[in-house]
Amino acid sequence: RYGEVEAEDLVGVVTGLAWTEVGGEILTIESVVVPGKGQVKQTGKLGEVMQESVSAAMSYVRSRSIHFGIKPTVFEKRDVHLHVPEGATPKDGPSAGIAMATSLVSVLTGIPVRRDVAMTGEITLRGRVLPIGGLKEKLLAALRAGIKTVFFPKENEKDLVEIPDNVKSGLTLIPVAHVDEVIAHALVRPPEAIEWEEPPEVVTNPAPVAAGASLPH
Amino acid sequence: RYGEVEAEDLVGVVTGLAWTEVGGEILTIESVVVPGKGQVKQTGKLGEVMQESVSAAMSYVRSRSIHFGIKPTVFEKRDVHLHVPEGATPKDGPSAGIAMATSLVSVLTGIPVRRDVAMTGEITLRGRVLPIGGLKEKLLAALRAGIKTVFFPKENEKDLVEIPDNVKSGLTLIPVAHVDEVIAHALVRPPEAIEWEEPPEVVTNPAPVAAGASLPH
Amino acid sequence: RYGEVEAEDLVGVVTGLAWTEVGGEILTIESVVVPGKGQVKQTGKLGEVMQESVSAAMSYVRSRSIHFGIKPTVFEKRDVHLHVPEGATPKDGPSAGIAMATSLVSVLTGIPVRRDVAMTGEITLRGRVLPIGGLKEKLLAALRAGIKTVFFPKENEKDLVEIPDNVKSGLTLIPVAHVDEVIAHALVRPPEAIEWEEPPEVVTNPAPVAAGASLPH
Amino acid sequence: RYGEVEAEDLVGVVTGLAWTEVGGEILTIESVVVPGKGQVKQTGKLGEVMQESVSAAMSYVRSRSIHFGIKPTVFEKRDVHLHVPEGATPKDGPSAGIAMATSLVSVLTGIPVRRDVAMTGEITLRGRVLPIGGLKEKLLAALRAGIKTVFFPKENEKDLVEIPDNVKSGLTLIPVAHVDEVIAHALVRPPEAIEWEEPPEVVTNPAPVAAGASLPH
Amino acid sequence: RYGEVEAEDLVGVVTGLAWTEVGGEILTIESVVVPGKGQVKQTGKLGEVMQESVSAAMSYVRSRSIHFGIKPTVFEKRDVHLHVPEGATPKDGPSAGIAMATSLVSVLTGIPVRRDVAMTGEITLRGRVLPIGGLKEKLLAALRAGIKTVFFPKENEKDLVEIPDNVKSGLTLIPVAHVDEVIAHALVRPPEAIEWEEPPEVVTNPAPVAAGASLPH
Amino acid sequence: RYGEVEAEDLVGVVTGLAWTEVGGEILTIESVVVPGKGQVKQTGKLGEVMQESVSAAMSYVRSRSIHFGIKPTVFEKRDVHLHVPEGATPKDGPSAGIAMATSLVSVLTGIPVRRDVAMTGEITLRGRVLPIGGLKEKLLAALRAGIKTVFFPKENEKDLVEIPDNVKSGLTLIPVAHVDEVIAHALVRPPEAIEWEEPPEVVTNPAPVAAGASLPH
Ligand SMILES: [Ca+2]
Ligand SMILES: [Ca+2]
Ligand SMILES: [Ca+2]
Ligand SMILES: [Ca+2]
Ligand SMILES: [Ca+2]
Ligand SMILES: [Ca+2]
Ligand SMILES: [Ca+2]
Ligand SMILES: [Ca+2]
Ligand SMILES: [Ca+2]
Ligand SMILES: [Ca+2]
Ligand SMILES: [Ca+2]
Ligand SMILES: [Ca+2]
Repeated sequence: RYGEVEAEDLVGVVTGLAWTEVGGEILTIESVVVPGKGQVKQTGKLGEVMQESVSAAMSYVRSRSIHFGIKPTVFEKRDVHLHVPEGATPKDGPSAGIAMATSLVSVLTGIPVRRDVAMTGEITLRGRVLPIGGLKEKLLAALRAGIKTVFFPKENEKDLVEIPDNVKSGLTLIPVAHVDEVIAHALVRPPEAIEWEEPPEVVTNPAPVAAGASLPH
Repeated sequence: RYGEVEAEDLVGVVTGLAWTEVGGEILTIESVVVPGKGQVKQTGKLGEVMQESVSAAMSYVRSRSIHFGIKPTVFEKRDVHLHVPEGATPKDGPSAGIAMATSLVSVLTGIPVRRDVAMTGEITLRGRVLPIGGLKEKLLAALRAGIKTVFFPKENEKDLVEIPDNVKSGLTLIPVAHVDEVIAHALVRPPEAIEWEEPPEVVTNPAPVAAGASLPH
Repeated sequence: RYGEVEAEDLVGVVTGLAWTEVGGEILTIESVVVPGKGQVKQTGKLGEVMQESVSAAMSYVRSRSIHFGIKPTVFEKRDVHLHVPEGATPKDGPSAGIAMATSLVSVLTGIPVRRDVAMTGEITLRGRVLPIGGLKEKLLAALRAGIKTVFFPKENEKDLVEIPDNVKSGLTLIPVAHVDEVIAHALVRPPEAIEWEEPPEVVTNPAPVAAGASLPH
Repeated sequence: RYGEVEAEDLVGVVTGLAWTEVGGEILTIESVVVPGKGQVKQTGKLGEVMQESVSAAMSYVRSRSIHFGIKPTVFEKRDVHLHVPEGATPKDGPSAGIAMATSLVSVLTGIPVRRDVAMTGEITLRGRVLPIGGLKEKLLAALRAGIKTVFFPKENEKDLVEIPDNVKSGLTLIPVAHVDEVIAHALVRPPEAIEWEEPPEVVTNPAPVAAGASLPH
Repeated sequence: RYGEVEAEDLVGVVTGLAWTEVGGEILTIESVVVPGKGQVKQTGKLGEVMQESVSAAMSYVRSRSIHFGIKPTVFEKRDVHLHVPEGATPKDGPSAGIAMATSLVSVLTGIPVRRDVAMTGEITLRGRVLPIGGLKEKLLAALRAGIKTVFFPKENEKDLVEIPDNVKSGLTLIPVAHVDEVIAHALVRPPEAIEWEEPPEVVTNPAPVAAGASLPH
Repeated sequence: RYGEVEAEDLVGVVTGLAWTEVGGEILTIESVVVPGKGQVKQTGKLGEVMQESVSAAMSYVRSRSIHFGIKPTVFEKRDVHLHVPEGATPKDGPSAGIAMATSLVSVLTGIPVRRDVAMTGEITLRGRVLPIGGLKEKLLAALRAGIKTVFFPKENEKDLVEIPDNVKSGLTLIPVAHVDEVIAHALVRPPEAIEWEEPPEVVTNPAPVAAGASLPH
């Protein structure tokens, strides 16, 4: 059933955790690759903060692509479409950031995501994981949905005292400070870096000279 | 008459089912192919959720195009225009998702849609079919319009107890969990997959190397 | 005088029929061809529904262009500008759809429109003609303006009982179910189809193979 | 002084006539040619109707460019910027249409506009001149500003009875039904048509064939 | 200190004069050249009228570029970014027009602007200088900031009677009717015109022929 | 912890200082380089003034790129994405301008920013540093977060009298009038200028000629 753990490990499909006044619930992030120019199309009635979060996740992944084994040239021919069902439910906030980055790396490498993993945490442009709200409600929702492992922000470790014991024993809780820790473990196998050589006309760094030269107008 | 079953099997024309407070009615989705760049133009006074639904349907079809026998290069030269008459009636919601995907596959393969089939269900980016509301009203409208077969979300099977017996005997009701089940049966013949080879410069996956290389700035 | 029948048969100029609370009146649709990329520029203070109606009319014409003798390559080098005077009067609604399609075919083929013909009907993407409101008021306006022949939706035939006898005898009333019936008769001569061969790299349909191949990411 | 007749005949500078509750006044339309792609940039706090009016004037001029001696290729390399000072005064309405068309032809041909001429009239896409409001106030303003000749819509001839005798004797009043009549006389010399041959791949009209061929999808 | 006369003659930096209910103040206009396509990027919380004023100034400069010694090809590779500090203060109105044109000519020619000069006046597309409001307050602000020379619209000469004697003796006041008078004197040296030959395929004017030819559709 | 001084010197990561009614706090500016065309993508719920501030910082850096050792051609192939966490907090105002310029130079040169440095100041298009508000609150926040050195606008030196002694002794306070003073010291090593030769067809300045030539239309 939708809203429960997936039946198998899937490429591009990641379980996030959302939180409203009426409790937590799981949130599926789906990505597919389509022809394009390195953009991310976003759907699922996402608010401005959530859209910027996808954008930050994408720029993080692009700026570190060879670290994840993704050829930079992929972005010259491919877009990613990221969708968050259910389509009629408005969603917002930055806390799905690390789930979005994980979904993007999965779909761009073709490495499936472990189906029993969920995650919550804001991502910054350099991959840092920032704290989120509603940890307790989110963990309860994860347990209810059949999730086994949850990645959460290291800065939220202080909130663990409020979490009921049955939740703590029913879930493996992994605090993270950087999204690379998530990506390394949430995919069924860690992505492997590639070597990459830019065309010389872009990377050649000419010898420094005395200042004073000026841009011709 | 408009609002009744079509007189013949048509390419790109699919019957969806809509639901308002005053009852259900059938909804025609029409698609045509025009020159373009792989975009979907949408008209028919569609709300944001319905527009995102078309977009998700298109990305699903594009990301699986060879599975449906659609050459990926088609999207470099063709747009699809999807229209939902009547043009003055505002429409919204995600439940026409699988009808939109079916219309897109039909118009992109040239395979007509069976005229006596209707369908309702939200589509996700990987083709999963999510539950919808108003099943009873929609089935009544389908029967009234002369429809013989209705595809509906497997997660709505629990709602069948509320459906009057004459509706259940007058319609073939097919629960579906994935849009491919719909496409295989709603078209007059199932699309056949093609083999496709991407140009090597995009698909070649270089050998993994030790991490640490960095994108030149 | 403006608002009366034209003095001669003109290319791209079609008489539509509008209807407000204060009665019917005739509406001139004008189109010219300008260099461009297959788009339709629209002016005349047109509302969203009317704009989508022009868009649907254009997609219908483009998708059937060779049927109308219009080379598909025209759309690579030409836009159409469609204007509905008087420029300060807001206009909306779908009922000018068939008039717009007729104007587009006229300007793209160079075949003039018969000056004593008017028309009303919503157009769908496959050229179907849907019913409209205000038939009586529109026919009165047509008669008053000197029109001889009016095309109207077949589904509006039931409304003919309300039309005064002098209107029915003063006008030739032609019910239509498809816009091609209008185009064939409203132009001074019917457009003739051309044969057209697409470049092979787009149309070649490779032999179907076993499914399972997947889009490289 | 600004708001009075120009000191000399200028290229692209045309005097229009505006009308508000507090009376008429003259309106200067200025155009210059800049590198571009056939667009019209518009400034001067113009409302939507006035902007569409500029757009209609430009499409009329483009669609008839060789008639005015303007090479169609000019539009591949040039934009026109049309400005209506004073920049802080909001302006709207369609009645400057023929003045805009005249300004565009002047700037694109390099032929100056006669400085003692003013004009008012809505333009349609085929150059027809539609009636306007406030003729009396506009003519008073023209006389006050030192104008000698005013072009006005033929359909406004009925309003001449309300015009004071001193205005009618102080101005040469020329009723016009088509903008070409204005352009021929308001410029210091009439533009001369050129001959123009399109590249054959666009204009060649293949022989008509039996209908039934269809656009490959 | 910011808000006082500059310490040296700078390229692209021009002093304008603003006026609000609480008095006049000086306004710095800054421009730099960046790679681009002949556009003007505008920042500084500029309102619509001020933005259109920049746009008119740019079109004036582009349309007369060779007169100012600016090669037209510069606009194929360069944008100008024009900024008006302080960034948090909303600004609007057309009276900085001639200052903007001066800034653009300075940055595009590389000729610095005299640091002790200020100016106020609306610009039109052909360089005409239109009158402004608040002359007295602006001149007081200029004097206070250490300015020596102020260019103002010739049509504002009537306002000089209200200006205190100490202001008139402390400032050189230069009335101008055309922006070229400003540019010739506000830069540290006047720009010198260049000769320029367009590529023949654009400028060749074919011999006029009899009218009647028509644009192929 | 987020909101405290960084653990190491990082490329593109700069500490700014924000100020609200409830006190000051530090603000992290992050930039990464992605493929593109010289644009700056901005995220972090930035208001219009802050977005224009990023744009001014970028134009300053681009217009002086060789002075900073950045090859102008980088901007033909690279965008910068600048993000200000936390993503859900709205931010606005011009006072992060010099921090943004520093972040851009760092990410475009690859030179890390000193981790114990913070800065506040509006930037203008020519690099001038304008005064800001809330200096006291900002310095308190910097001290609290573990910052050692703060760059602030020279025009704010008058505000130092209000700063408590322990803040003045706990921080090295450096007044600056130009952003280059910041960039030279906030990076772990100053950027070194390069020599750069534009392709001749752009920079060649033809000999001045007598005015009077005119742009062909
Ligand atoms: Ca739900
Ligand atoms: Ca949206
Ligand atoms: Ca209906
Ligand atoms: Ca719409
Ligand atoms: Ca009317
Ligand atoms: Ca409009
Ligand atoms: Ca005035
Ligand atoms: Ca505007
Ligand atoms: Ca100030
Ligand atoms: Ca703005
Ligand atoms: Ca915080
Ligand atoms: Ca934003």
